[in-house]
Amino acid sequence: MFTVALAKGALLKDSVSMFLRVGLDFSEVLAPSNRQLMVPSACGKAKALLVRNGDVPVYVSYGQAQLGVVGYDVLKEHQLPVANLVDLGFGTCHMSVAVKATSGYESASSLPANCRVASKFTNCARAFFEEIDLPVELVHLNGSVELGPITGMAEAIVDLVATGRTLRDNGLVEIDELFHSSARLVGHPLSLRLDNGDLQKIIEAIQTQTLTN
Amino acid sequence: MFTVALAKGALLKDSVSMFLRVGLDFSEVLAPSNRQLMVPSACGKAKALLVRNGDVPVYVSYGQAQLGVVGYDVLKEHQLPVANLVDLGFGTCHMSVAVKATSGYESASSLPANCRVASKFTNCARAFFEEIDLPVELVHLNGSVELGPITGMAEAIVDLVATGRTLRDNGLVEIDELFHSSARLVGHPLSLRLDNGDLQKIIEAIQTQTLTN
Repeated sequence: MFTVALAKGALLKDSVSMFLRVGLDFSEVLAPSNRQLMVPSACGKAKALLVRNGDVPVYVSYGQAQLGVVGYDVLKEHQLPVANLVDLGFGTCHMSVAVKATSGYESASSLPANCRVASKFTNCARAFFEEIDLPVELVHLNGSVELGPITGMAEAIVDLVATGRTLRDNGLVEIDELFHSSARLVGHPLSLRLDNGDLQKIIEAIQTQTLTN
Repeated sequence: MFTVALAKGALLKDSVSMFLRVGLDFSEVLAPSNRQLMVPSACGKAKALLVRNGDVPVYVSYGQAQLGVVGYDVLKEHQLPVANLVDLGFGTCHMSVAVKATSGYESASSLPANCRVASKFTNCARAFFEEIDLPVELVHLNGSVELGPITGMAEAIVDLVATGRTLRDNGLVEIDELFHSSARLVGHPLSLRLDNGDLQKIIEAIQTQTLTN
């Protein structure tokens, strides 16, 4: 019996489909009536732990889940000790710097020194601006980061962009890109070393079906 | 024209009612169809900024909102420079230490040294355990903190308790209390000093109706 940490939200449906293709049926977690946070697979061989996006690497790094599915953006932001096993190919998006379309800035390096940058991903943002050697004041927000430039609190944001619709709807444009992101299969390093074969079998099946997909 | 930051979620309905009683009608934010994050009051004298709980003190401390309504728990956790103006009396709950009912621990000080404590409020938890002189390993979670003890990742949690139903449903019991919380009216200190009377009038009306309520 092993445990898989699944992120609630945008990645959940694809995560459940992927496990279904390798023989683990967690589709109960998708039922609108489901309120359980721990759901056994139909075969009883594994269970799913339904947690927030940012909590997946926490449960995997402490070994409470042996495997997990989470966006690369979350792994980059939190830097927890988990093994990054397979790029699953879904949940693709990119981390971008965006500004008001009317601001005139054309790249991150053209932003004024010490300007304010709002983000949910302040660690990623800090690393990026240090790399381009531009001192900025980071403002950590928990949601609706696009309000930063709209209210005038921040000159720029660093945020995940999937379709770009939120940016467009709010009169913002991308001026730089930090990295691409997609869903990753992660594992608890010690559990992988002590594995009797069960985890390896699942990981290999996922690798195979990801390559052929 | 001034701006009021309102927290989405549990406090929103009571916040809107309170402003309505002092003459500012933001009830549009409660419409299920509302997708706007900035909503003008019916009279046009103010606007509401609809943000996450934890972002209310951010917008108020930067002066993008002159007033805000947010739980005392969030103010304690983030310690941002906002003026704590009125205890609004609604949204009451308390911050507690809870453990599995079967664990046998009867108070926070009986927890083993260096045990793991999961919380969304790690700053509050850190201050509390330092005060009682018990070294613990804090695990920051973003949601469903009750999974910490259930999965065996943490021996205790520090979390907000309103009705206690979540704890009971998950076989957890409170063993200590950090503080009581309720919704607070907060203000941007500089805006309050530069106020031409508009903010003061609203604050006084809220104080009066909170006292008589």
